Amino acid sequence: MYDIRGLNEECGIFGVYGHPNAAELTYIALHSLQHRGQEGGGIVCSNEEYLFGARGMGLLTEALSREQLTSLHGFPHAIGHVRYATSGGSELSNVQPFLFKSHKGDLGLAHNGNLVNAMSVREALEDDGAIFQTSSDTETLAHLIRKNKSPDRKTRIKTALRQIKGAFAFVILDEEALTIALDDHGVRPLMLGMIDGAYCVASETCAFTAIGAEYIRDIEPGELITLSEAGIDFDRYTEASHPNMCSMEYIYFARADSEFRNTSTYTIRKSLGQQLAREMDVDADIVIGVPDSSLAAAKGFSEESGIPQEQGLLKNRYVGRTFLSKGQEARERAVRMKLSPVRDVVEGKRIIVIDDSIVRGTTSRYIVKALKKAGAKEVHMGVSSPPLKNPCFYGIDVSTHAEIIASSKSTEEIRREIGADSLSYLSVDAMHDVYHSYGSKGQCDACFTGNYPIEIIDRLLPQEKDQKTKGV
Amino acid sequence: MYDIRGLNEECGIFGVYGHPNAAELTYIALHSLQHRGQEGGGIVCSNEEYLFGARGMGLLTEALSREQLTSLHGFPHAIGHVRYATSGGSELSNVQPFLFKSHKGDLGLAHNGNLVNAMSVREALEDDGAIFQTSSDTETLAHLIRKNKSPDRKTRIKTALRQIKGAFAFVILDEEALTIALDDHGVRPLMLGMIDGAYCVASETCAFTAIGAEYIRDIEPGELITLSEAGIDFDRYTEASHPNMCSMEYIYFARADSEFRNTSTYTIRKSLGQQLAREMDVDADIVIGVPDSSLAAAKGFSEESGIPQEQGLLKNRYVGRTFLSKGQEARERAVRMKLSPVRDVVEGKRIIVIDDSIVRGTTSRYIVKALKKAGAKEVHMGVSSPPLKNPCFYGIDVSTHAEIIASSKSTEEIRREIGADSLSYLSVDAMHDVYHSYGSKGQCDACFTGNYPIEIIDRLLPQEKDQKTKGV
Amino acid sequence: MYDIRGLNEECGIFGVYGHPNAAELTYIALHSLQHRGQEGGGIVCSNEEYLFGARGMGLLTEALSREQLTSLHGFPHAIGHVRYATSGGSELSNVQPFLFKSHKGDLGLAHNGNLVNAMSVREALEDDGAIFQTSSDTETLAHLIRKNKSPDRKTRIKTALRQIKGAFAFVILDEEALTIALDDHGVRPLMLGMIDGAYCVASETCAFTAIGAEYIRDIEPGELITLSEAGIDFDRYTEASHPNMCSMEYIYFARADSEFRNTSTYTIRKSLGQQLAREMDVDADIVIGVPDSSLAAAKGFSEESGIPQEQGLLKNRYVGRTFLSKGQEARERAVRMKLSPVRDVVEGKRIIVIDDSIVRGTTSRYIVKALKKAGAKEVHMGVSSPPLKNPCFYGIDVSTHAEIIASSKSTEEIRREIGADSLSYLSVDAMHDVYHSYGSKGQCDACFTGNYPIEIIDRLLPQEKDQKTKGV
Amino acid sequence: MYDIRGLNEECGIFGVYGHPNAAELTYIALHSLQHRGQEGGGIVCSNEEYLFGARGMGLLTEALSREQLTSLHGFPHAIGHVRYATSGGSELSNVQPFLFKSHKGDLGLAHNGNLVNAMSVREALEDDGAIFQTSSDTETLAHLIRKNKSPDRKTRIKTALRQIKGAFAFVILDEEALTIALDDHGVRPLMLGMIDGAYCVASETCAFTAIGAEYIRDIEPGELITLSEAGIDFDRYTEASHPNMCSMEYIYFARADSEFRNTSTYTIRKSLGQQLAREMDVDADIVIGVPDSSLAAAKGFSEESGIPQEQGLLKNRYVGRTFLSKGQEARERAVRMKLSPVRDVVEGKRIIVIDDSIVRGTTSRYIVKALKKAGAKEVHMGVSSPPLKNPCFYGIDVSTHAEIIASSKSTEEIRREIGADSLSYLSVDAMHDVYHSYGSKGQCDACFTGNYPIEIIDRLLPQEKDQKTKGV
Repeated sequence: MYDIRGLNEECGIFGVYGHPNAAELTYIALHSLQHRGQEGGGIVCSNEEYLFGARGMGLLTEALSREQLTSLHGFPHAIGHVRYATSGGSELSNVQPFLFKSHKGDLGLAHNGNLVNAMSVREALEDDGAIFQTSSDTETLAHLIRKNKSPDRKTRIKTALRQIKGAFAFVILDEEALTIALDDHGVRPLMLGMIDGAYCVASETCAFTAIGAEYIRDIEPGELITLSEAGIDFDRYTEASHPNMCSMEYIYFARADSEFRNTSTYTIRKSLGQQLAREMDVDADIVIGVPDSSLAAAKGFSEESGIPQEQGLLKNRYVGRTFLSKGQEARERAVRMKLSPVRDVVEGKRIIVIDDSIVRGTTSRYIVKALKKAGAKEVHMGVSSPPLKNPCFYGIDVSTHAEIIASSKSTEEIRREIGADSLSYLSVDAMHDVYHSYGSKGQCDACFTGNYPIEIIDRLLPQEKDQKTKGV
Repeated sequence: MYDIRGLNEECGIFGVYGHPNAAELTYIALHSLQHRGQEGGGIVCSNEEYLFGARGMGLLTEALSREQLTSLHGFPHAIGHVRYATSGGSELSNVQPFLFKSHKGDLGLAHNGNLVNAMSVREALEDDGAIFQTSSDTETLAHLIRKNKSPDRKTRIKTALRQIKGAFAFVILDEEALTIALDDHGVRPLMLGMIDGAYCVASETCAFTAIGAEYIRDIEPGELITLSEAGIDFDRYTEASHPNMCSMEYIYFARADSEFRNTSTYTIRKSLGQQLAREMDVDADIVIGVPDSSLAAAKGFSEESGIPQEQGLLKNRYVGRTFLSKGQEARERAVRMKLSPVRDVVEGKRIIVIDDSIVRGTTSRYIVKALKKAGAKEVHMGVSSPPLKNPCFYGIDVSTHAEIIASSKSTEEIRREIGADSLSYLSVDAMHDVYHSYGSKGQCDACFTGNYPIEIIDRLLPQEKDQKTKGV
Repeated sequence: MYDIRGLNEECGIFGVYGHPNAAELTYIALHSLQHRGQEGGGIVCSNEEYLFGARGMGLLTEALSREQLTSLHGFPHAIGHVRYATSGGSELSNVQPFLFKSHKGDLGLAHNGNLVNAMSVREALEDDGAIFQTSSDTETLAHLIRKNKSPDRKTRIKTALRQIKGAFAFVILDEEALTIALDDHGVRPLMLGMIDGAYCVASETCAFTAIGAEYIRDIEPGELITLSEAGIDFDRYTEASHPNMCSMEYIYFARADSEFRNTSTYTIRKSLGQQLAREMDVDADIVIGVPDSSLAAAKGFSEESGIPQEQGLLKNRYVGRTFLSKGQEARERAVRMKLSPVRDVVEGKRIIVIDDSIVRGTTSRYIVKALKKAGAKEVHMGVSSPPLKNPCFYGIDVSTHAEIIASSKSTEEIRREIGADSLSYLSVDAMHDVYHSYGSKGQCDACFTGNYPIEIIDRLLPQEKDQKTKGV
Repeated sequence: MYDIRGLNEECGIFGVYGHPNAAELTYIALHSLQHRGQEGGGIVCSNEEYLFGARGMGLLTEALSREQLTSLHGFPHAIGHVRYATSGGSELSNVQPFLFKSHKGDLGLAHNGNLVNAMSVREALEDDGAIFQTSSDTETLAHLIRKNKSPDRKTRIKTALRQIKGAFAFVILDEEALTIALDDHGVRPLMLGMIDGAYCVASETCAFTAIGAEYIRDIEPGELITLSEAGIDFDRYTEASHPNMCSMEYIYFARADSEFRNTSTYTIRKSLGQQLAREMDVDADIVIGVPDSSLAAAKGFSEESGIPQEQGLLKNRYVGRTFLSKGQEARERAVRMKLSPVRDVVEGKRIIVIDDSIVRGTTSRYIVKALKKAGAKEVHMGVSSPPLKNPCFYGIDVSTHAEIIASSKSTEEIRREIGADSLSYLSVDAMHDVYHSYGSKGQCDACFTGNYPIEIIDRLLPQEKDQKTKGV
C-alpha cells in the first residue's frame, strides 16, 4: 500500500567484498531490497585500483541496463543502493552510491538513514570553500572524510563519522577496503552475512536469502567493520551505544521474511496481532488482514482470538500510476482500484479488519465502506501498532501532503471519520513487550510518543532539506 | 507466478454504452483486468458519428498516455482490451481494440479467446482478394462482417459469427451500437453489468467492482446482445449451446474476487482445496499456499484437514525482468528472487505446500528445495487441480518453450524430479464436483483430459499462427 | 528552406535486385534521397521465399536502428522509401514500403506521387468488403493487385495499374520479381541504374552516385520494368505516353547533382538564372543566391549579367524545430534564425537576390528587410521560375496553411508586400525554353498556369484525403 | 564537414543581463552558436534571489524541452552554453552552464576554452579536501572562487582568474551580477553587444544577428566586465595582454557572417583565398570550393586568379550518423555520402579545389578520386591555410584517432597520398598578412608552427584530462 499510505522508507544498501560475481550479487540483493526504495538505484565496484559505477532512475530493472551490469562484471568488491520515491524533485544526481573521483583515490558511498545535523555541517564546510553537488546528506560525510588530513584511512573515517549525528547505515568503498558503519542508536537495520567465504552486508536478511548467503548477525549500534585484503576488522567508531531501532521497520517496512536477531518480522507481526487480540474486546465472525503487510498480524489475531481469518480483501498487483484527475476523489479511486472485497466472503459477516497502521485514514475509510457495500454487517478496525502522531527525522518520509490523522484527532474521532463500528490501536507498552520478547534492547517509538532519542539539530524534514540545497 | 509458470491468459475485454465517462470507466476497468494481459492495451470510443481510438504497448500505465486518455474524454460509448505478453513477436499493430475505417462506417473490435478456423477462413478471404494487416484472429471477423452484403447490421454480424469456430468473447463497436457476442461453448467468461443506468460488459466481475458497477449476470454461450439508442436487445446468433467454460479460469486465471454465477473464485478455490484435503492422505504440521493464487486453496485445505495455515512463502512484489544470464539456472534464480521462505515459520516442520497447478515443475522444485534448506522436515506437495497434460487451443498460451512436465511423466516421476516427500493432484471428478456444486453446467477440461469440446480445425497454436501471418 | 517555404516533396524511392548488399545499398541510397522526405523511411527485402521489412519515423538515422539494418543483411533484393513530413497526422502505419502478408505470397510496395482517383477506387473496393489500414493511396494498388484473379503476375499488376490515375512511380517487390512502374505522364522522376551487374532504380541519380552505381537512363512514362531471375524485362503497362515531368523537380526539389537525360539540375538551374537575367532589366553591384537551392540560378544570372555573385546570405545548418511561440512573428524569427546576411558584403550595395520560388512571401520579406538593415542600398528580387499560383494534385504538398501569395496578388502587390525595390519572375515560355533545350519532351506547369495535364478526379489535396481515411 | 574532418571547437557561450526575455534570447543565440558545439547545452537564469537552470544532451532542440524553456521564462538574467561532441565519454554532468548551490549563494558558470594548469590546480584543491564532480576545467574556477575568503565578490573572482592559465572565455552568473572574463591572450573570441538597452555577450557576433542585438565591440584580452544593477563596469583582472586569437577561428570555426573587429570571416576567408591564388602557380578551367566552409576562400581565389568558380561539389544536408561498418572504408563512404560531384560541371575540366584545411586527408583523397571519376582532367588542391601539424591545448579537439597527416608527411607525400595533380598550402606569412590587414594584433599559429604562446603546464589533451578525472 506504499503509494497510498504516504509512508516511505528512505533506502536500502548492500555490499560484498571479495567475490568474483560481486556486481551480480549486488544486483540480485538490491532487487530483494526494492521495497525500501523505488526511485533509483546503482552499484559501485572496485578492483583495488579504481572504482567504477552505474546508476539510474526508477526500479532497478529500469535503472540499470544489461550493458551497465555487464560492464561491472568481474570486479571483486561492490556496494549498491536503492532509493525511495519522493513525490517530486528526484534527480539522477541524488541517486546512490555516490562515486567521488580524486587524484588521491576514489570514494564510493551509499547511505540509509537521515542525518540531523547535515545542514549545519554542510554550511560550515561551504563557509570553508566546499562545493556540494547534491542535496543529499551522504555527500556531507564524503567532504568530512576528504577534509581530514590524517594519514590513516580508518582514522579519517572514524573522525568524520563522529562529526555527524542522526540515523545512518553506511557502506563506504575505496581502493583499500569496504567499510561498514552504523550509527550509535542503530536506528536503521544492518546485517552481516557471508557467501562463498566472502563477507556481505545488507539492510535486511532477505537480501541474503535472495543471493544464497548465510546470515551471520545484526550489526551493532556504533560498530565500524572494515573488509580488506587483511580480512575482517571489527571495531567501533564510538563507545556510545543507545539501541533504538525504528519500530516501523518491524511493523511495516521490513520484508516479512527478513530476520532481526534470528526472528522474522512475520513472527513479530503475528505477535503484535496476538497482543492486539488480547487488548481488543470485540466479537466477530471473521478476521481480515489488509494485504500484504497486515496478513501476519491478522493471522496472530486470529490465532489468539479464535476467530477464523479469511481473505476478504484482495490487492490488485498491476495498479501503478494512473492518469486520472487528482484530489481526494482520485485518492479514493486509487484505493478502490488497489483493494477489492470478496463479496461472498464478507456478506452478512461481522468483521474485524487488521491493518498495521493508519496514516491519513483514506485507506481505512475506503475499506470500511467497501466491506459494508459488499454486505458486511459490522466492520471493526484493529491496528497492530499505536496511533501514529509525529513526523520522523531519522529516515522515514511521512508525507507532508497528508494530514497524519492521529496527530490532531482522537481515536473516537478517527473511528467516526473512517466509519468503523469500532477502532482499536495496540498500546505502546504492548508493542514494546513484543519487541523485548524477541530480544530488542531498545526501540525508537518517536512517531507514536514524540520521544525523539536523537536530538533534532537542524529540525528539517527531508523535503525541506531538498529545497534548500538542490543544485544542478 | 505469471512470468515463471508459463501459463498466460490471452486477453481481457470491457465495454460500456451510454455513459458520460465511458473512456475513464474503461481505463479503470482495464486496470482491474490487467492480470489477463500485460503486453498492451487500448480503448476505442464512439460518439455515434465516428470512432476514435488509442492503444499502446506494455502495461496500461505505459500503453496509454494522459494525453491519449484526455483525448477520449466525453465519448459516450467505449470498448477496451488488454493483451497478454508473448515472449517475442509482439507489435503495436496486434494490440486491440482494432479500429477499421471505411467510407461505409467505422468498426471497432476487441476479442478474448482463440479461433480454431481462423487460418482457413483467412486463406479463403485472401483468395478472394482480402488484405490482412495483422496476425490476429480478430481481423478475420472484421473481414467477414465487411464482406457481408446484407443491409441489416445485426444480420451481417450474426452471419459472420456463424462462420467462425472456437472460443471467443467479442465486443464490437460501430456508429450505431455496441454488440456483445460469446461463442456457443462459453469458453471465456463474459459478464453483464450496469453503472449509472448504462450497461457494461467485462471479462470478469472485478471490473465492475473497480468502477462501482453492479454485476447483473453471466452472459450465456451463443448470446448476442446489442446496446444501442433503442436500449438493450437480447438475442442469440446461434441456437446451439454447449457450456464449456475453461477450468483454468477458476483454478488460476480469474481474480479471486471475480464471481461466476454469484460465487467468487476465492470460494471455488477454497472448495478445490477442501476436496484435495479429502483426497490427500498426508499428515503435517502446517499448510502453506504458494502466493498469491494458491492461498485460497490452501485455506480450504487447512479448514478441511485441521492443519493450520501459515505464510511460509513470501512473494517479492518488485521483481521484473532482470538482465542476468539465461537458461535453467537463470530460471531457478528468477524463482528464488520471487519466492522466499520464512525460516522461523518452516524450520523443523512437516509441511504441505498447496499450489494450484504445475506446468514445468521449476517453481515446485525450487519451493521444495528452499523450504528444506530453511529447515523443513518434510515437504508434501498438493496440487488443487488435476495433472496438466495438454496444450490449449482456446485462448491460453501454455508456453511451448517449457516441457509440460505431466505430459510425459507420471506423478511419481514428477515427485522425484521436484524432490517432494509426496505429491498429490486433485482428481478430475472431484474438480467437476466442485464446479457443479457452484452451478456450472459444463466445464472444459481438455488441458487435463485431452477431451477437446470444440474441433481443432487448423491445429495451430497461437505462436504458430503468428509466424504464418505476421505482416508490417 | 524546406520547413519555412511550405513546399514539400512527397517521397523518394529506391530498389535493387540481385546484390549481396541490397539492404545496405538501399540504406545509403535513401540517405541521398532524404531531401525528398524526412518523416519516415523503411526497407523491404526479399530472399525469393519471403519478404521482411523494417521502417520507422523521422530521418533515416532515427527511423532504422542498427539492429534492424543488420537483420536485413544478406537478402539479395530490396526496395526502400523515404516519406515527406506533413505538419500533423503522421503515423508509423503510413510509412512505406508497405509489406502485405498473405498465404498466397508477400507483397512489398513503395510509391512516389499522388493518385487522383484513389478515393473513388478505394470506396468501390470498400463497398466490396475490402478493409484498408492506412490513409495512403499506395494501399489502393495493393488491393487492386490482390483482387485480380489472373494467374499471371504481370497481368495482375498491369491491370491494376490501368485502374489508377495520377502521378506515380512504383517499386513492387514480391517473391518472384521487383517490378518498376511509372505513370504515363512521367510526372515524378524515375531512373534506371546498375551496380556490380545488378539493376537498380531510384527517384534521382544522386542515389546512384551515393552507392557508386552507374546511371543508365531515365525511365519512360508508361514503362513497366520487371527484374527477376530471368533478367530484365522492358515492357509497358499502357501504350499512352504524355510526358509531363513536374517543373518543380528542376526548379527546387531535385538535388543539384541529380541528372535528367544526362544534365544536372545544377546546369538547368544555371540556365534558368541566365534566362532570368535576360528578362530582368535591373542594374546592381552584386548578385546573391538564397542558399542552398538558388545558388545555381544566381550563378547563371551572374554569368549572363556580368554582375559579380557574392555569398551575402548564409544558412544556419543547425536550426531545427524550436520551442518558441507560434504565429507570424514566430515564423519570421524562424527565418531569421535560419538565414543571416553578411554585413560587410552587402553594406552600401545595390543587390539582386535570386530565389527559385516564392510561396508565402515570408522568407522574401525577411531577406529584403535583413539586407536593408545590414546596409544594402537597393534590394531587387529575381525569381528563377514563374509566379506559383495553384495547388498540386500530383505529389507536391503546397501547404494549405499558407496563403500562396501569387494566387491572389499581382507581382506589384507582392513586391510591395515583401518590400523589394523591384520584383521579377521568369516567364513561363522562357522556363519551357530551358527545359526543351535540355531535351525535355513535355513538362507539367500546372502550379504556374493551372493547366492540369491529368484530370483531377477526386479533387482532394493529400491532407484532405488523410482526414477522410485515417484508421488505427 | 565537422564529423569527418576531426576538428572540433570546444564550445560557445552567451549571456544577457536585464532583459525580460533573457532565457528566450539565450536559447535563440545558442542556436546560432550550435556550430561551436553539438553535444549538449543549457541555460542558467537568475532573478537576483536565486539561480535556476536547465541543460541536456545533444543538439539544443533535443537538449532543452519546451517545458524547461517555459520554466525559465521571466528571469531577467541568463547565461548559456553549447558543448562540443567528443567521440565518447560525454555525460550530462559535464554539460554547462554549471550551477553550484550553497547557503552562501548560487553560482552559474559557462566556459569556452581550455586551461593548461587545470589538473595541477585541481590536485592542489583536492589535497585540501575539495571534491570535484565533473571532469571539466570549469569546475576548477568555481572552487577557486569559493575558497577565496575575500569579502568582495570582484576580488574573489579576480584572484581566482589569476590562478588559472590557458585559454578561456567565461560568463559567471551569481545573484548580484553577470561577470565576463577573457584570458590575457584572448585565444577564444568574445563579443559585447546590446539589445533593447540590455548588454549581452557572445562567442560570435552571429548570435547578435540572430536575436536582433547590436554588435558593440570585441572584448579585449584580460578584460573583466561586470554587469549588475549598478550598470556596466569595465575592468581588467590582469594588466597582462598578449593578443593571440586562434587562427582556426578565422579559417574554419567561426560562422562566415560572424565579425571580428567589424570584418566578417567571409571577407577574411576570401582574402586568404586571394593570397593563396597569388602563391599558387597553377592554371585551370574552374575553381571549386569544398562546401560550406571553403566557398569564401574559393571565391577569393577565383577573383584573384580570374578562373571561374563553379559549384562542382555538393553537400548532402541530411547525412547524420549511419549504422554501417567501421574503419577506413566506412569513413570513405561517409565522405561519399556527404559530398557529391556535379558531373556535367566537372567533366573534361582542369580543376582547382580549394579547401580550408587538411587534417587526416580522407576527405581530400575522396574529393580528388570522385572528381576524376566524374571526368575531371586535372585536380589541383589548394589549401587556404598552412599545413596543420600540431595538437592544440587551447580548446580545439584535434582528434587523436586521426593521424594529422602533415605532422609526419611532406607536402609532396600528402599530394601523392590524396592523388592530386598538385597540392599547395598558404604560407604562414601570407596568412598573418591577411590577419594584420584586418586589424589583428596577434594570432596564435601553434597548430601550424608549434610556437605555443601559453606555456603548456599540464601537457594533457582534453581527452586525457577526461580519463583522469571522470567521476559519477
